[in-house]
Amino acid sequence: MRARVTVTLKREVLDPQGEAIRRGFDALGLQGVREVRVGKVIEVELDDAVADAPRLLREAADKLLANPVMEDFAVEFIGPEGTTTK
Amino acid sequence: MRARVTVTLKREVLDPQGEAIRRGFDALGLQGVREVRVGKVIEVELDDAVADAPRLLREAADKLLANPVMEDFAVEFIGPEGTTTK
Repeated sequence: MRARVTVTLKREVLDPQGEAIRRGFDALGLQGVREVRVGKVIEVELDDAVADAPRLLREAADKLLANPVMEDFAVEFIGPEGTTTK
Repeated sequence: MRARVTVTLKREVLDPQGEAIRRGFDALGLQGVREVRVGKVIEVELDDAVADAPRLLREAADKLLANPVMEDFAVEFIGPEGTTTK
């Protein structure tokens, strides 16, 4: 089973790395970019036999991967044909 | 228009950060995790009027966001109902 945890800064938190990328896009000739936000993506490959994997993975992501003061996270499970469930 | 660029390490590149997270999951009681890989996700908000945005964004991502020696990247465009196109 494959899962993907995406960790992003909360909307109200400033993202200077994203702003630097926005200026870089501008310098490269890609104009009209309003905003860029940078986050992390954590791809997890699990044994199919793990019981209760969605709950365990959400708990582990909450404790280990995201800082709840500044970040939000989302967990998606990727099916065999690339379909995703949240 | 919204787009999402995902930058991941190539499969043959070691990912010590991912391995540290795998051990952390184990310590938190989430067993049966085979592999964890960590990447970046860059969310871009563009004016709808930008002509040729997909090509320009791919070029800019290639030059600015990914290191082609060690990393792969994928660009997705997110439609109004959350649908994605590559």
